[in-house]
Amino acid sequence: MLLSSCGAFLAPNQLGSSSIIAGPRLRAAIEPVRMMATAPKTVKIGIVGGGTVGGGIVEILARKKEFVTNSLGFDIQIVKIAVGNLNKKRDFAVPTGCVITADVMSVVKDPNIDMIVEVMGGTTLAKDVVFNSLKAGKSVVTANKALISAYLPELKALLAEVNAGKSGKDIVHFGFEAAVCGGIPIIHALQRDFLGDDITQLSGIINGCTNFMLSSMAAGGKSYKEALDEASALGYAEADPTLDVGGFDARSKLRIMMKLAFGINVNEDEIPCRGITEVTATDFEYAKLIGGTVKLLGIAKLDAPGSDRMSAFVSPCFVPSSSTLASVNDAINAVQITSTSLGSSTFVGRGAGRFPTANSCVSDIFGICEGSTSEPFPKTAPLSLKFRNSFTSAFYVRIRFRDGTGIIRSVGTAFANAGISIQSILQNPIKDKNDAMFVVMTDPADVSQVKAACVELEAQDWCLGNTFYMPVL
Amino acid sequence: MLLSSCGAFLAPNQLGSSSIIAGPRLRAAIEPVRMMATAPKTVKIGIVGGGTVGGGIVEILARKKEFVTNSLGFDIQIVKIAVGNLNKKRDFAVPTGCVITADVMSVVKDPNIDMIVEVMGGTTLAKDVVFNSLKAGKSVVTANKALISAYLPELKALLAEVNAGKSGKDIVHFGFEAAVCGGIPIIHALQRDFLGDDITQLSGIINGCTNFMLSSMAAGGKSYKEALDEASALGYAEADPTLDVGGFDARSKLRIMMKLAFGINVNEDEIPCRGITEVTATDFEYAKLIGGTVKLLGIAKLDAPGSDRMSAFVSPCFVPSSSTLASVNDAINAVQITSTSLGSSTFVGRGAGRFPTANSCVSDIFGICEGSTSEPFPKTAPLSLKFRNSFTSAFYVRIRFRDGTGIIRSVGTAFANAGISIQSILQNPIKDKNDAMFVVMTDPADVSQVKAACVELEAQDWCLGNTFYMPVL
Repeated sequence: MLLSSCGAFLAPNQLGSSSIIAGPRLRAAIEPVRMMATAPKTVKIGIVGGGTVGGGIVEILARKKEFVTNSLGFDIQIVKIAVGNLNKKRDFAVPTGCVITADVMSVVKDPNIDMIVEVMGGTTLAKDVVFNSLKAGKSVVTANKALISAYLPELKALLAEVNAGKSGKDIVHFGFEAAVCGGIPIIHALQRDFLGDDITQLSGIINGCTNFMLSSMAAGGKSYKEALDEASALGYAEADPTLDVGGFDARSKLRIMMKLAFGINVNEDEIPCRGITEVTATDFEYAKLIGGTVKLLGIAKLDAPGSDRMSAFVSPCFVPSSSTLASVNDAINAVQITSTSLGSSTFVGRGAGRFPTANSCVSDIFGICEGSTSEPFPKTAPLSLKFRNSFTSAFYVRIRFRDGTGIIRSVGTAFANAGISIQSILQNPIKDKNDAMFVVMTDPADVSQVKAACVELEAQDWCLGNTFYMPVL
Repeated sequence: MLLSSCGAFLAPNQLGSSSIIAGPRLRAAIEPVRMMATAPKTVKIGIVGGGTVGGGIVEILARKKEFVTNSLGFDIQIVKIAVGNLNKKRDFAVPTGCVITADVMSVVKDPNIDMIVEVMGGTTLAKDVVFNSLKAGKSVVTANKALISAYLPELKALLAEVNAGKSGKDIVHFGFEAAVCGGIPIIHALQRDFLGDDITQLSGIINGCTNFMLSSMAAGGKSYKEALDEASALGYAEADPTLDVGGFDARSKLRIMMKLAFGINVNEDEIPCRGITEVTATDFEYAKLIGGTVKLLGIAKLDAPGSDRMSAFVSPCFVPSSSTLASVNDAINAVQITSTSLGSSTFVGRGAGRFPTANSCVSDIFGICEGSTSEPFPKTAPLSLKFRNSFTSAFYVRIRFRDGTGIIRSVGTAFANAGISIQSILQNPIKDKNDAMFVVMTDPADVSQVKAACVELEAQDWCLGNTFYMPVL
């Protein structure tokens, strides 16, 4: 009995299986699809944008042609691709019969095209492409978060208008999985899997560039500048990284997810937003001391389950090690949802890049072919739900000071005057008495109270300014 | 400038916003839905099974009635619920007009019912319910993993048969999100979001009871017996916990996900399966020493990307701390997918329980109402893809021994004879020379080689048997 005492894996004959349900033996090379189409149905698509994502879509559709024909029952033909510069060398093989054009609207107006894939970006010409395509009865797939964030109510109204009285295969679909967190299927999950649930909080690492930078600062003790240079060298940061490091890219994504999770429309600029430019190596030292790290999070939450008040913000946050989000590093994204039925659910994956983004576009293209897309913006918040331009949280406050007597008393007074209860004060050994740091951890308070405390602190002669605060997840 | 030096959040007036896109101000209490239905469409459902999950579905549908009517445009009526014992007190409010019956097939045969929700469990009567409902043209939602795992090819063939020539609203849908990992929408993701991608590996913590037990053993140094008692007391373990601790529940889920991820049908009993009964506190000591922990994983993988050979198994595994799966504790489930376009994607959430499972059923019910379900089993593996009843991995091998001379030489000989390269040998301080443990970490080898090495080891007079091995993630 040596083998069995060694914990042998069960083999079929040991189970004495008499199963008559043959698995692989019954499997044919082509199993029947649900709809048993006799011949694959042709779907003609036009792509607006022949860059990184557009090229990725062309490549994936070429790679999957046989699967799409045999298993899904569709013959997807890319008939036109609009590009900005006809003379630029393409980094993908142009499909047979596909026309490359510089005339964007010729793609939209082509009566032979059933579906438009907008991957050009921007909110001007791209808006015309998306809106005119929908008006022309063409389904649209887009990766354009800025456009959706800016024009969400108009998009929803237009979709209702063009679909009035329509059903089944006549419905004009709108797929935008690629617009938020690249390859993470968070849009589909919010459109479908949380419809019967009540979401109370959504917290996400929703910008890859800044997560790469913060992970690099946390792991390697790099400065902000070194981390940004590294992110630029690896292609994670744009030439002008403001949208990333300023938190604005994350805010657009948060605004779209807030509509899907809570049904609420909030203008982007109503959401408090702070980027990572003030985060320093010191903050990682203190975060480690408290048992956690620093992440740029977009958070939207009800004041309490069932509450009719909610808030949202983008900010660097202290994230305790016990949170799944603390272990999400590099350019990876993650969205964590707290809800009544499901408790906590987390989706982790690549938030950007050619193939993750293209993959999300392709899954929307397939969904539209199948007619299996969900209502794009299914939730509508009750009018009673109020969004407030502020938020409550426990806070981490880092204070720069010149050493002297009475500082703790002075700090105590400033926080007490602001109505904030201090949870703890942390102080690493002082290296330079004339320029040192300490950290105050507070109990939950409104951000306006923290701002007031900072104003009072900075008025003290021992305080050297550059006070930095961040919410605690 | 005290306030701005304090890192003030941007307020709308500071941005000088001139946006004319009103968000909340444009929002009406009831925004138009995509299809602009004039009156909500009535959908009559029958539920088979009035227990934990069935009751949860009734509760959620009652809670969401207004949302479903106003935002989705459906009036979902539960008209019949079949229960095993008519006299048992229900733990939910029976909807007005809903008939409670003990006659299961009367629900299936009721011509007024459009959709059947099967949450009774089992593979005999439940099989009749599901198959007969589909044959009668009724869409089906089920949480029954055992049934799907056992009859997947038959279900797929039946769906193709009943949907032959059908399209649009006539399609008979089959939703089984609830059958695998309760509240994690992994079925929908595999049915839709990975269709354009090529999955190379799927690794999951897919049984809540065992993950609770292993987390408890890891954190609290509990024995297997203590952990099982705790799991039972909290309701995570069944009266007979064999299906959980033996790995068989995880294997059913893995078999279903293998069809969705790789297109392959494999009989459950062809998948090597070992549970957690042999895992001891010692394994957690060594796992910590190496920098990781022990998790029960279900893994299915191609031998290499693009390979036409694949393997799968359920086994306790050593999981390094750097893996997201290492931080998934308690009764939480997680599925990690490695794919060509997306790299690594992880879905974390509650794998069981009344409301997580009911929520997944409800999302399928809504999807069927909307007609937005995906093809249930879209992928079909090429005939060239071969499944082999074995697998390759680096291994952790724990050996129980009586101290003496020549043991390391003997161990080296046994592994060399089996063709396995040893990576390292770990030894905590020996407390009892007559009954001690050491651990061998190997380079990648086939499990059959490890078994052979164990046979040779256990034939040595210094070896006390009970050799335990597990793959390294």
